[in-house]
Amino acid sequence: MNKRFVTFLPAGVKVEVEPGTDLLTAASKANVEIKAPCGGDGTCGKCAVKIQSGSVKARRDSHLATRIAEKGFNLACQSLVQDEDLVVEIPQTSALTKHQVLVERSSIGEGISDALSNYLLRVWQLKELLLEKQESPLNGYPLKPLCKRVRLTLPAASLQDNRDDLNRLTMALKKEIKCTDIQIPLPLVRNLGEILRTAQFKVTVLLSEIGGKAEIIAIEPGHAHQPLYGIAVDIGTTTVVAYLLDLEKGRVVDTAGTHNRQARFGDDVISRIVYAVEEQDGLQTVHQSIIDTINTLIMDLLVKQRHIKETDIRVMMTAGNTTMAHLFLGINPKFIRLEPYIPTTNFYPVVKSKELGLRLHPDALVFSYPSVASYVGGDIVSGTLFTKMGNEDAPISLLIDIGTNGEMVLGAGDWLVTCSCSAGPAFEGSGITFGMRAMHGAIERLEIDPQTYEISYTTINNGKPVGICGSGLIDCLAKLRCSGVIDRAGKFQTNLPTERMRIGEAGPEFVLVWREDTDINRDIIISEADVKNLLRAKGAVFAGIRTLLNVVGFELDGIENIYVAGGFGNYLNIPDAIAIGLLPDIPVEKYKYVGNTSAKGACMALLSQEAWQEANNLAGKMTYIELSVGNLFMDEFVSSLFIPHTDLTLFPNVSL
Amino acid sequence: MNKRFVTFLPAGVKVEVEPGTDLLTAASKANVEIKAPCGGDGTCGKCAVKIQSGSVKARRDSHLATRIAEKGFNLACQSLVQDEDLVVEIPQTSALTKHQVLVERSSIGEGISDALSNYLLRVWQLKELLLEKQESPLNGYPLKPLCKRVRLTLPAASLQDNRDDLNRLTMALKKEIKCTDIQIPLPLVRNLGEILRTAQFKVTVLLSEIGGKAEIIAIEPGHAHQPLYGIAVDIGTTTVVAYLLDLEKGRVVDTAGTHNRQARFGDDVISRIVYAVEEQDGLQTVHQSIIDTINTLIMDLLVKQRHIKETDIRVMMTAGNTTMAHLFLGINPKFIRLEPYIPTTNFYPVVKSKELGLRLHPDALVFSYPSVASYVGGDIVSGTLFTKMGNEDAPISLLIDIGTNGEMVLGAGDWLVTCSCSAGPAFEGSGITFGMRAMHGAIERLEIDPQTYEISYTTINNGKPVGICGSGLIDCLAKLRCSGVIDRAGKFQTNLPTERMRIGEAGPEFVLVWREDTDINRDIIISEADVKNLLRAKGAVFAGIRTLLNVVGFELDGIENIYVAGGFGNYLNIPDAIAIGLLPDIPVEKYKYVGNTSAKGACMALLSQEAWQEANNLAGKMTYIELSVGNLFMDEFVSSLFIPHTDLTLFPNVSL
Repeated sequence: MNKRFVTFLPAGVKVEVEPGTDLLTAASKANVEIKAPCGGDGTCGKCAVKIQSGSVKARRDSHLATRIAEKGFNLACQSLVQDEDLVVEIPQTSALTKHQVLVERSSIGEGISDALSNYLLRVWQLKELLLEKQESPLNGYPLKPLCKRVRLTLPAASLQDNRDDLNRLTMALKKEIKCTDIQIPLPLVRNLGEILRTAQFKVTVLLSEIGGKAEIIAIEPGHAHQPLYGIAVDIGTTTVVAYLLDLEKGRVVDTAGTHNRQARFGDDVISRIVYAVEEQDGLQTVHQSIIDTINTLIMDLLVKQRHIKETDIRVMMTAGNTTMAHLFLGINPKFIRLEPYIPTTNFYPVVKSKELGLRLHPDALVFSYPSVASYVGGDIVSGTLFTKMGNEDAPISLLIDIGTNGEMVLGAGDWLVTCSCSAGPAFEGSGITFGMRAMHGAIERLEIDPQTYEISYTTINNGKPVGICGSGLIDCLAKLRCSGVIDRAGKFQTNLPTERMRIGEAGPEFVLVWREDTDINRDIIISEADVKNLLRAKGAVFAGIRTLLNVVGFELDGIENIYVAGGFGNYLNIPDAIAIGLLPDIPVEKYKYVGNTSAKGACMALLSQEAWQEANNLAGKMTYIELSVGNLFMDEFVSSLFIPHTDLTLFPNVSL
Repeated sequence: MNKRFVTFLPAGVKVEVEPGTDLLTAASKANVEIKAPCGGDGTCGKCAVKIQSGSVKARRDSHLATRIAEKGFNLACQSLVQDEDLVVEIPQTSALTKHQVLVERSSIGEGISDALSNYLLRVWQLKELLLEKQESPLNGYPLKPLCKRVRLTLPAASLQDNRDDLNRLTMALKKEIKCTDIQIPLPLVRNLGEILRTAQFKVTVLLSEIGGKAEIIAIEPGHAHQPLYGIAVDIGTTTVVAYLLDLEKGRVVDTAGTHNRQARFGDDVISRIVYAVEEQDGLQTVHQSIIDTINTLIMDLLVKQRHIKETDIRVMMTAGNTTMAHLFLGINPKFIRLEPYIPTTNFYPVVKSKELGLRLHPDALVFSYPSVASYVGGDIVSGTLFTKMGNEDAPISLLIDIGTNGEMVLGAGDWLVTCSCSAGPAFEGSGITFGMRAMHGAIERLEIDPQTYEISYTTINNGKPVGICGSGLIDCLAKLRCSGVIDRAGKFQTNLPTERMRIGEAGPEFVLVWREDTDINRDIIISEADVKNLLRAKGAVFAGIRTLLNVVGFELDGIENIYVAGGFGNYLNIPDAIAIGLLPDIPVEKYKYVGNTSAKGACMALLSQEAWQEANNLAGKMTYIELSVGNLFMDEFVSSLFIPHTDLTLFPNVSL
């Protein structure tokens, strides 16, 4: 069949495809990124594009497609290339990439993908923190990296001392590392004799030593003194951040971040799993996509640190949720999303870099953080390690990480219970009319004048507003309630004396920003349906907390510390979050922002064998509570669908 | 440059080569095997060929080449192809292969290389012994193969029992195998979820379990009941024998043997090491050559056992000398032959079949018998295991394996001392004018009438004589002495009244067979130089035995058993061997032929974890005595250069 050209604007990228190809696939082929949170199902409406020239055929009719078509747009995922070439414009709201200008202004520098640049700004801040404020990534653990060098001077071979070369080496090694089980792969044995003799029996052994077992990774002639590097990677569903570490000095050399290229297969883990399971070569494609993402980050780091080569990086640690870990290693994730929600494994084999095609030393060992269950992943274990909740003397604490799911861990020392509640992606902007991720132009703070209903707001980077991000949505919900725009059940008071309150296509809505003040030429509104979505999200999180407490027989006031983790956490207004009933009503000083604990825990484990072992202990001792078993969670959830809750005694300090 | 054709007769194989190529290389390229014990150095004279058409250029002039040329032959290794096509005849004496007729007559069957067919006859006999006489290859060890199946029925996953799939599997496995350290490679994890569910949680796990550590090799849906195969390979310097084993029944299914294709790089380990170290890509070439040899054997076995596929063979055990083990694994053998004679390793990493390119299941584990020193290899450890000399209640025993080197082990239970004396390849026919390996037409028994000096003899397969093999040479030496042809120092009595005694090119010689009775149209003689070579060989072996006894403070009569191993062993005339002073003068009933213990020990270790562990224990506890340290050995050696010895009290029962 004759192929057709599709040109994507504004980038001007041209790609040749078979007729019948949908525009989302064509864009992916052209490496042009279009939002597709639903994974191309035609249900989210975020991939709207404008056909500038040529015509397309709709895959099927749908109410959503019709509504979008009325506005002059087509859903990329539902539009099939026909017998003519096309020119397709991707509006800013549908593009995953942002304007270059911002990246330049923020000095993040060349080489980094310009996607999600605001997120990168935050990475940059974290990097500043780590690099300039000299905060140790070890967080109190002793420096004993997962890959280390041992410099040996062996007695020379002689007729009197005619032990074989490998025995000579391992006996000397055993004196240094106190480890009896030493493994060495065949390729390193093959030329050992020559290496020992050219170096006059002075060699440097690179090894990983964990729990009484050591594996030799390399044997180099002479005593090596150049730095030894490792890389810790936080594999987020949305963003991926890499930390280049000097393993012998125990410090972060540099960081880089970018968006997860898997985004083209959907925003959330479920869409990724569906793609991996249902598309031809889906698993391989999604797997390769995260490998490519990480390789890009490595290249970014090496461009900046020109004295370091790929092969200088000898070990890697990753932390991510269970689905990310499965996809990173190419493990079929199918059963994660099917009841009874079983991951293939929670403890992942250590593999060599070359098995995955990573751009590190081919024999670099690659470790993956253990997870606890399908929806409590290595990122949460990593966070638990960082907070030291599992330490013997730890007070009763709650770690909470709010994203698509609300994952939480409750416990102290020996006992730790954990669960994941499907909060839905509302706080990440999905399912909310003008919801968006924390990017340029997102409303993040908001005030409503209770008299005039006038609105004041701040946006990320002070850009002209384009939508509302998670922290803005929580603020919004609190302020809508405070000002009486909505009642405790989230119902809109449609009779308010302001033109901001109106009835839209989908029911009551409240205008937050008038079109002339936006960067998208549309009124930014919040609808009653949006509020219901947010209530379900916050209700699920609070119900999760209550369920965990119930399981172990504690009350809210038994909690000594609440650690708020995740990219979202740092920007959360705690009093607002308490006011809407998302977080427990305990004194604000008991709350601690802990930031991106997934990345921090990955660095800790890479730099300290003790931390890595503790991470594995933690994953083993955390008790997973499956919320869909029994009625406990559902009862709590229903009670939590109000602002702040049906049981007001739980929120004594919240004024209505 | 224009290539030229070389046609080799009698096979009629044609090969195209560059001018300048030597004929030995051309033959190798054509897969026509020519004897080259010196590895192509032009020093052994065994690769003589006849140029039927065309002319060659000599690489260099040498006394040997000239002598051979006078007889109408050229040394293949020294003859370079010029500007014309050649027809080259390989005389039977230079060919490594034998006449097809013999193979057919012995019914060894198609598919087996016809090389060394007499050796194959013996393998055949051994096979008969194992297969038909139902001798168990376990030799008393319990059947617990290195690779075994565990059939599991797991509880199905549910919301109440939501352990991850791998954990579910390993917990069930731990109940069956009592092993806590279970490793699983990533590729087996990747689709575990699907396998468990399609098989309704009934699976068969294939694993290797050794010393409290288990490695999962495969996971198959359902409960497998087809046979499970392994292969044990004795990698001899000259011949390679493979045993196909049914691991669950603990029996030998079939055997196959062929010559080691490395023979083209020289007959002995030293020539092979020199080739590997000095030629371009030498190590890779020599390594690939043994891999090819083994793959041929596997194919031979599978042709005969048509219901078995390559991938049905899941584990392999090899035993061979230290050099063979190094070359098999591609480990640089360079330092084995350089003082202080250090092997790279005596304990070899377990590797996967695919790392070596073996035609087994790609994930089949490949084990290599541990060795003790550069010249005491896995074949000797294997023999020691077979004799059970290391058992607690074992009497003081001597294991002796005479080949190019004479390797021996002396000890009982906890103590075992071992050494290797460079006997030289005299007993294998090298360095002896008409010496040859135990092949068709080799004289293996010989009588000399002390009055008439007439000779009677028997040959292998009753063929017309072509030379003398090891057992024939020992017989010959004993009978030459008994009949007074030589004196105690090996000096020829040139004044004997027989025309068999004469002065040849290289000094005194004695005609064993007149040319008209031979198959080579030349008188078969033994020279004084040959006798000196044999005395040095036998002297080295006896001196080795005496040195070991000295080290531990025992006398010859302290030895309770002498195990004679090796292909040569079974055909050795013990009284003759005592008479010449090769073996100690102790009662003949204390001698036991143990046959190819290298192969037998390999089968044992493959079928029994206990045997494999004991093999490793043995290799660790054997004390290697380096004979070149101190004067002990040299003094003993000089005293042993007489028949039977200078100290006749050591041979009270030998009449002179």
